[in-house]
Amino acid sequence: MSNFNLTDHPHRRYNALTGEWVLVSPHRAKRPWQGQVEKIQEETRPQYDPTCYLCAGNERAGGEKNPDYESTYVFRNDFSALLEGTPEGIVEEGELFRAESERGVCKVICFSPRHDLTIPEMEVEEIAKVVDVWQNEYNELGAKDFINYVQIFENKGSVMGCSNPHPHGQIWSSTSIPNEPAKEQMAQLQYYNNHRRTLLGDYLKSELEKKERILVENEHFVALVPYWAVWPFESMIISRRAIQHLGQFTSEEKLALADIYKRLTVMYDNLFEVSFPYSAGIHQSPTDEEPHPEWHFHMHFYPPLLRSATVKKFMVGYEMLATPQRDITAETSAERLRSLSAVHYKMR
Amino acid sequence: MSNFNLTDHPHRRYNALTGEWVLVSPHRAKRPWQGQVEKIQEETRPQYDPTCYLCAGNERAGGEKNPDYESTYVFRNDFSALLEGTPEGIVEEGELFRAESERGVCKVICFSPRHDLTIPEMEVEEIAKVVDVWQNEYNELGAKDFINYVQIFENKGSVMGCSNPHPHGQIWSSTSIPNEPAKEQMAQLQYYNNHRRTLLGDYLKSELEKKERILVENEHFVALVPYWAVWPFESMIISRRAIQHLGQFTSEEKLALADIYKRLTVMYDNLFEVSFPYSAGIHQSPTDEEPHPEWHFHMHFYPPLLRSATVKKFMVGYEMLATPQRDITAETSAERLRSLSAVHYKMR
Ligand SMILES: O=P(O)(O)O[C@H]1O[C@H](CO)[C@@H](O)[C@H](O)[C@H]1O
Ligand SMILES: O=P(O)(O)O[C@H]1O[C@H](CO)[C@@H](O)[C@H](O)[C@H]1O
Repeated sequence: MSNFNLTDHPHRRYNALTGEWVLVSPHRAKRPWQGQVEKIQEETRPQYDPTCYLCAGNERAGGEKNPDYESTYVFRNDFSALLEGTPEGIVEEGELFRAESERGVCKVICFSPRHDLTIPEMEVEEIAKVVDVWQNEYNELGAKDFINYVQIFENKGSVMGCSNPHPHGQIWSSTSIPNEPAKEQMAQLQYYNNHRRTLLGDYLKSELEKKERILVENEHFVALVPYWAVWPFESMIISRRAIQHLGQFTSEEKLALADIYKRLTVMYDNLFEVSFPYSAGIHQSPTDEEPHPEWHFHMHFYPPLLRSATVKKFMVGYEMLATPQRDITAETSAERLRSLSAVHYKMR
Repeated sequence: MSNFNLTDHPHRRYNALTGEWVLVSPHRAKRPWQGQVEKIQEETRPQYDPTCYLCAGNERAGGEKNPDYESTYVFRNDFSALLEGTPEGIVEEGELFRAESERGVCKVICFSPRHDLTIPEMEVEEIAKVVDVWQNEYNELGAKDFINYVQIFENKGSVMGCSNPHPHGQIWSSTSIPNEPAKEQMAQLQYYNNHRRTLLGDYLKSELEKKERILVENEHFVALVPYWAVWPFESMIISRRAIQHLGQFTSEEKLALADIYKRLTVMYDNLFEVSFPYSAGIHQSPTDEEPHPEWHFHMHFYPPLLRSATVKKFMVGYEMLATPQRDITAETSAERLRSLSAVHYKMR
C-alpha cells in the first residue's frame, strides 16, 4: 500500500501559485506512441511581406501607416478589446447578476521589422529592445490612474490563434486585476505574510537544489518546468532576485531576460524541429500603488504540442469541466527539453 | 458618465457559480465580419464502419471485442487516465510541493450502434437510453467507497480533440472532487447557507422572468445562455426542480433531459448548418455521502465556434494568462440561437 510514487502512479499535484490541482497519469505515457514525430514542411517567409499589416511602411486595418521602424514598434490595437473612454458604472441585479464597466488600453508590439524572424531566431540584443519596450509600457500604462494591471503576452503560431506570423506580442492593460494574477496574488500574499519571503523565491531555491525540473539558467533568471505544469512542455522563467515588476529591472537584468527568453525558445524549436507554438506572458505586481512585497516576477509559457509538430494536447471535456490532465510528468518533459542542443536547428 | 450599459461598453461579468470573471467587449462585434459563414462539405459516414473501434462487433485497441449492442454500450476505457488499483499515498515536501495519489474509474459510453448518428439526429427515446446509462453509472460508480465524484462528459468533433466520430461520451470518476465542481460547490454552499434555497434555483427563476437568455424549455428543464458565458455560444441546461444528482431523476425527468438535450443540439447544428462541435458535461453532487442540499443539477455546453463552421474562438494569450474574453454578448448569442428552426437542417 505504501509504494506510491509520482513516476508510475496516477496522482494530482497542487499548484501553489493558483491553489488549483492538475491530474497526472504517468502510466499512460507507456502506451504505444500513436502520433508520429514528423518534420513539418515549414513555409519560408520573406523578410518583408507587402500584404502584412505589421511590416514597416505598410497600411493597417484602420488605415494608419506603420513607420519605417528599425527594431521594435508599438501601437494601439486597431481592434482593442478594452477602451480608454468607457463610461464607469456597475450593473447589479441581486447577487447573481453582477457586471462592472472595464476601462483599459490594448497595444501591439512588433518585435522586429523582419517578417521572417521569431524570438528564438533573433539576436539577444534585439530581444533586449523588446524587453525595453515592455519596461517602458509597464511604466507608462501603469502610471495611468485607471490602469491597475498590465498584462504583457505573446501568441505564437496559428494553433494559438495567431493569424499573422510577423513576430509580435500584445499588452492588454485594465482597471481590474484579471483572474489569474488575482489568484496568484492571493497565494503569494498568504505565503509572504507567513514567511516574510516570496513564495517563488523559496520555490526556486528548492528547485535549484532538486535540479530535476531545471531547463536553463543565467545570472539573473532560471527557466524550469513547474512541478504543477499543465501543458505537456509548459515552463516558467523566474527571476533569482525577488523583483516585483519590470519597472525595477536593471539594464543587466533586461539583457539577461532577453538571453533566457531566447535560450528557452530555441529549446522549444529544437524539440520537434519546428517553429514551436505557445502563448507566453508575464505576471508581475499590479500598478495599483500598493507596495506588493509578495509579488515575484515570472513569465509563463503554455505550448500546446504533445507528441510531434502535428499532435497537440486538447484541453477539452474533462479539463474544461473538471481538472486539467496530463500524461508525461513534468520531470520527463524537463529531461527531454534539457537534452536538446542549445543551437537552433535552422542554424546547424 | 452614467450612460454605461452592457450592450455597448466593455465590461466584466461575474460568474456566480465559480466566483470568476469574464471580460466582454461588445463594441468589437460591430467591426466588419471578417470570417465567412460557410457551409462545410460534410463527410457522410456509413452506418457501420469496419475500422471503427466503437462499432458493434469490432475489436478494440486492447484486443477486446465489442458485443453486438443495439442501443448503448458501456466499457472501461482501454487507456484510462485513472485506475482503480493505484496505491494510496501522499508526497509532501514542504507546502510548495504537494501531490496525492488519485484513484478512479474511466468509462466510455457508445450512444448508439449507428456510426453515422449524433445526439441531435437521434430519437428522444434513444437518447433517453443514454440518460439511463448515466443514471446507472452515477449510482454504481458513486457507490464505490473510493469514488467521490462522477464526471460525465462528451467531446464532440475533431476540433474538440475527439478522434472518433462514432457517437460516444465518457465518464471519469475519482476520489477527489475536481477543480470545477469544487468551485461550484463552494459558491452553491455559501448561497444555500444564506438563503436556504439553491443558487441555480433562484438564478433560473430570474432568467425565466427576464427571458432574454432563454433558449428552449420543457416541463422539467430549461436551456439558456448563462449571463457569465465565456464561449461564444455557451449554454447550460438547468433542472426546474432542485435535483441534486442523476440518482434522483424520475423516468419523466430522464425523458425530459433527453428531449432538451436533443432540442439544444439541433439548435447548435442549425446555427452554421454543420455538425456543431462542443464539450459538454454534467455537474451534480459528489458521491461522498454528505447530504449536499446546495447542489442543483445542470449540464454545461462549451462550443468553440465563433463566426462560421471554420472560424473558432481561440482561448489563448489573454485568456490563459489573465481572464477569458468574448466579443458578442450572451444576450446576442441567445437571440441568434433562439431564432433558428427547431427542425434539423438535414431533415428539411
Ligand atoms: O479520452 P480521449 O477522447 O482519448 O481524449 C480527449 O479527451 C480527454 C478528456 O477530456 C482529454 O484529456 C484529451 O486531451 C482529449 O484528446
Ligand atoms: O488579438 P488577436 O491576435 O486578434 O486575437 C487572439 O488573441 C486574443 C488575446 O489572447 C484572443 O482573445 C483571441 O481569441 C485570439 O484570436
